[in-house]
Amino acid sequence: MLEPSPEIIIERIRSALGTQRIQDAVRILLELRPVDQAEVFNLLTDEEQILLLTELDIPSTADLFEELENEEVLDAVGTLSPERLADVLDEMEPDEAADLLGDLSPARATEALANMEDAEDVIPLLGYPDESAGGLMTTSYIALRRHTTARQAIEFLRQVSLDVEVPYYLYAIDREKHLIGVVGFRQLVIADPGVTVEQIMDREVIYVTVGDDQEDVARVMSRYNLAALPVVDDQHRLLGVITHDDIIDVLEEEATEDIYHLANVTDKDLNPQSPIVDQVKGRLPWLYLNMVTALFASWVISRFENVIAEVAILAAFQSVIAGLGGNSGSQNVAMIVRAIALDKIDSREMLGVIFKQVIVGMLQGIGVGVVIGIGVAFWQNDLYLGAIVTMAMIANMIIAGIMGTIVPFIVKALGQDPALASTVLVTAATDSFGFFIFLGLASLLLPYLVNSP
Amino acid sequence: MLEPSPEIIIERIRSALGTQRIQDAVRILLELRPVDQAEVFNLLTDEEQILLLTELDIPSTADLFEELENEEVLDAVGTLSPERLADVLDEMEPDEAADLLGDLSPARATEALANMEDAEDVIPLLGYPDESAGGLMTTSYIALRRHTTARQAIEFLRQVSLDVEVPYYLYAIDREKHLIGVVGFRQLVIADPGVTVEQIMDREVIYVTVGDDQEDVARVMSRYNLAALPVVDDQHRLLGVITHDDIIDVLEEEATEDIYHLANVTDKDLNPQSPIVDQVKGRLPWLYLNMVTALFASWVISRFENVIAEVAILAAFQSVIAGLGGNSGSQNVAMIVRAIALDKIDSREMLGVIFKQVIVGMLQGIGVGVVIGIGVAFWQNDLYLGAIVTMAMIANMIIAGIMGTIVPFIVKALGQDPALASTVLVTAATDSFGFFIFLGLASLLLPYLVNSP
Repeated sequence: MLEPSPEIIIERIRSALGTQRIQDAVRILLELRPVDQAEVFNLLTDEEQILLLTELDIPSTADLFEELENEEVLDAVGTLSPERLADVLDEMEPDEAADLLGDLSPARATEALANMEDAEDVIPLLGYPDESAGGLMTTSYIALRRHTTARQAIEFLRQVSLDVEVPYYLYAIDREKHLIGVVGFRQLVIADPGVTVEQIMDREVIYVTVGDDQEDVARVMSRYNLAALPVVDDQHRLLGVITHDDIIDVLEEEATEDIYHLANVTDKDLNPQSPIVDQVKGRLPWLYLNMVTALFASWVISRFENVIAEVAILAAFQSVIAGLGGNSGSQNVAMIVRAIALDKIDSREMLGVIFKQVIVGMLQGIGVGVVIGIGVAFWQNDLYLGAIVTMAMIANMIIAGIMGTIVPFIVKALGQDPALASTVLVTAATDSFGFFIFLGLASLLLPYLVNSP
Repeated sequence: MLEPSPEIIIERIRSALGTQRIQDAVRILLELRPVDQAEVFNLLTDEEQILLLTELDIPSTADLFEELENEEVLDAVGTLSPERLADVLDEMEPDEAADLLGDLSPARATEALANMEDAEDVIPLLGYPDESAGGLMTTSYIALRRHTTARQAIEFLRQVSLDVEVPYYLYAIDREKHLIGVVGFRQLVIADPGVTVEQIMDREVIYVTVGDDQEDVARVMSRYNLAALPVVDDQHRLLGVITHDDIIDVLEEEATEDIYHLANVTDKDLNPQSPIVDQVKGRLPWLYLNMVTALFASWVISRFENVIAEVAILAAFQSVIAGLGGNSGSQNVAMIVRAIALDKIDSREMLGVIFKQVIVGMLQGIGVGVVIGIGVAFWQNDLYLGAIVTMAMIANMIIAGIMGTIVPFIVKALGQDPALASTVLVTAATDSFGFFIFLGLASLLLPYLVNSP
């Protein structure tokens, strides 16, 4: 959507800055929408960013900061005077300002709050965890009393700033700020001017409580197709509103977390360009866990050292059994984890699913095992070896079906994200069992193997 | 949010149906919101569903159908007469009606369209692929001409049905239906009644073209935080509007697809309870691909058959090197795939990322390799074997860093989803290379190994 491309815009800004036409550079930047400004700003050098910020007006700086990522905005904030930072924070949406304040050093945050004019909008938001309903909500919404007429409401709307972040619904509250109803903007517009809020409001308001987890909030909004969702405290008093765009971020974060957990990366904020130390921290612990399970599988193999010493070619096929079993198990884990995440399955249905996955595993085991068994029999000119490969494959894929279904449910029952650790545990099972069943069958049938001594 | 629980509501409905009080059962169902009705409806038996549908009024049936999943609604549709089905389709949102018609048999769909009154709203939507902007959009939006005044617009709004699906924005079009601007609902409300649409509209409308892929549509809506997004044809004529709730579905679908592709499950519509045949179809082809790569790795091992015959314990450790390398590679793939999906990386940055991932791989290789090398050295009382394990582990994790970064970019450059096949190809590399480097080093250092003959 960004035309001309960021590169061309950056060239224009650079050439303006290079000849000290800073105002021109700012004008080029401001022709873009804030999110596009952020993209371009981010590609500039620190010196160029500082030059632009000196001339950018306060409201535009606030818009820009709202669109920058956390680390990027922290870099930019460092160059502002405390007074200017406070002015910018006053102009930002309260929820965005609160997020930024939360990322500053305590000293810097306190200083900024002391200099702010509208600190009272932001302070209530500072105490909530980032990933709770309180951490997502904004205090920038419109609340009406029940006896307000449609005419008065519209008059009120004309007076308040157009910048209120929640333009879809109006919330009705009583004297103690209890949430008692919701009015759609359009209902208000088409209502008779003398009608009161109470007469047109919907009393069955869908809401969340301030401590609710962001993932539950996202589920409610997506289930009921809401553009905005009110947040209340335990006494049902209206505290803030969450908007649809926040939910999109939450869903993307949660999807990233699931994908990372399935691949054994702990920290969802990591990306391939994160500092090396952070990447190693988020990944290495899982490799150590994997090391333990892999060593257990090694120990299983080592129990069959004599068999392998006699028929060394077994070592070439043990990994096929283990690897394909692990693959089938990972397919299973991915499907179960996703079904749990999207609320499409619950533990009462587990037995039926296990039964189905055992059948799927068996069929896959037959499908792959027969082909590979025939291939191995011809390649090694050893019918028994081929038969062992087939049998071990079928058995291991049945295990993959069982473990791949049970493990995510167990991890969930332990109060953990089912995506976390499930892959490691399931592949630990398919590796160890795969080696055991293949080498075990081989040792039983050793006298029949072609290469046996 | 559903209180009392679905089970209790189902009991109440069952007891009403059991005593032939069908009207009562319908009333209990209608006390719920449509999405909750769908959840309960879905848990009833076919006979119970048919009984309810005979007494459920047309608009409620339409609301219910909009919330049911594809297969569920098809079951329910089967029990309706052609005339009744046409009436329900008339009441449904045009985009939902078009989706349902697309799932019916051609004969059934033609018959239903012939019986519909508002078929002209739906027919234009039938031709677009499900996963394009055209497949997501609804024709149920409000368009205004540029000279309409705010007062006239509000008067118009009072007349049109409250059921229009897009209550956030009004779109301004010219005589030829070209999209020329957008007006927020609130702007309209607070505008002076005599002001024209042209005077208050924003001319810089963000839009998509009807053939755009749903993933790109979702990116645009989430980037610009839009509650609704207009869809135009090549001539920039307004065809429809996509709303925020459709995008949530798209994002969840795309996340499921990424998770499934990374785990080698092709069909994103599968879930653990899908028919066994479908599950095998979506999973088995990948196991065959994996079989081929696994057999290649077996062949690599078979080249070292003599070495293994002499030092059989090598077979116990080859899998640790291959497995942990594969694990590290999968971590890499997940991070790259997610960064590509979220547009946080592009191929120009690839070299820098490869460099970083090589360092990460090396550090992880040292971190795991030294520990495991010492462990193996003590366990097998063989210093050289430990050293070989350490060296092979470091080398394999460097390969994991390189391949885990390059492969997703290559798959993407080939026009495929980078999540697809990347895991298989990367683990093929770490398996084969892992076996090769470990067994290769062992054969070079064979005379020094404790158990060597």
